[in-house]
Amino acid sequence: MGLMDADIHGPDIPKILGIEDKRPEISGDKMSPILVTPRLKAMSIGFLLPDRDSPIIWRGPMKMNAIRQFLSDVDWGELDYLVVDLPPGTGDEPLSVAQLIKSVDGAIIVTTPQDLALLDSRKAVNFSGVLKVPVIGIIENMSGFVCPYCGKKINIFKYGGGERAASELGVPFLGRVPLDPKMVEAADNGTPFVMQRESKVREAFEQIVENVRAFVEGKEVKSQ
Amino acid sequence: MGLMDADIHGPDIPKILGIEDKRPEISGDKMSPILVTPRLKAMSIGFLLPDRDSPIIWRGPMKMNAIRQFLSDVDWGELDYLVVDLPPGTGDEPLSVAQLIKSVDGAIIVTTPQDLALLDSRKAVNFSGVLKVPVIGIIENMSGFVCPYCGKKINIFKYGGGERAASELGVPFLGRVPLDPKMVEAADNGTPFVMQRESKVREAFEQIVENVRAFVEGKEVKSQ
Repeated sequence: MGLMDADIHGPDIPKILGIEDKRPEISGDKMSPILVTPRLKAMSIGFLLPDRDSPIIWRGPMKMNAIRQFLSDVDWGELDYLVVDLPPGTGDEPLSVAQLIKSVDGAIIVTTPQDLALLDSRKAVNFSGVLKVPVIGIIENMSGFVCPYCGKKINIFKYGGGERAASELGVPFLGRVPLDPKMVEAADNGTPFVMQRESKVREAFEQIVENVRAFVEGKEVKSQ
Repeated sequence: MGLMDADIHGPDIPKILGIEDKRPEISGDKMSPILVTPRLKAMSIGFLLPDRDSPIIWRGPMKMNAIRQFLSDVDWGELDYLVVDLPPGTGDEPLSVAQLIKSVDGAIIVTTPQDLALLDSRKAVNFSGVLKVPVIGIIENMSGFVCPYCGKKINIFKYGGGERAASELGVPFLGRVPLDPKMVEAADNGTPFVMQRESKVREAFEQIVENVRAFVEGKEVKSQ
């Protein structure tokens, strides 16, 4: 599987995966992606910065150029899936990906459950419609919170908004990922949370993967 | 005071301020900003969308054009401050604002405390340096969390990272805003949290305003 970080201004994939210090090898006019595990290859502008705090001060056309190079000049080899991680919004990055990859299988919209976030996520669903990219579905992130000390539910960013939006917009709901401070810690440490332990978060991810695979293989998405 | 929403793809200011249904009046070739309170005028692309879920599918130059019009074709009148709300990242929107407003007093960088967010926020500080925009300081948002049931501290997105980054980068630290589910609710309801009740959040905002004013008036910023 390939993971392409198309968040040009905030390339966080190298840090999340614990491979911040890696640099892609260049041979001829091709660049090798970083091998994260035997089955996962990653590419990010983060690997190419002079230092980790360097800002990328580029307007849209430069960003489209970088995305084009990530697609054409990176030696991805044979891939079953290419996942493209995009920044929030409906700007140059998703527009470039939709125009450069002719047959995108579909878009996944990740949202938090509060109304304010859904306002932007619904725009992303409609953006996909305009560009004729199928919507695989909506994932509700930071969905609900349980106090680890007293066990009480505190829905900090609310709960259920992503599922409601999916139903209103007539697109599949792929699942919800609960808010968990251990996930924040794991991302900061570069040890992806889903790979390390049995937990509600891991279960949530497995259900989501199942649903995405079902969509791509043309089966029906089970709602959670 | 003027508040200009320069988040073209995710214009949330109208919803947060509870003025989603307002439309700017047009007279001649000028547009009036929306009067939120007698002292606060706001402008956002959100006021101009055909409906709230319409995506803005624009590349950089179109966005720069919209920002230019918000500055030149909006009848702001006399303002003591113009606050420009920008999307995350170092892309077309902040670049356009820095180029179109010749003498920006300064930039405020808002971050959450975890390392992953700081990675992007440090880029924003360096971006300001490259564009010769003074950095007023860093605000740490979603800083710490206290369970409303058992009173235990749970630092969901960690605590203190913004202050540490400010100190490392040699820029002022303006204050921290705690994570509070009531703030999420208030934003969704269009009733700005700081205007309604005495709370730690309100106190935090007042300290931040004090620090920003001190910076603009050339005084020293008190650290919290």
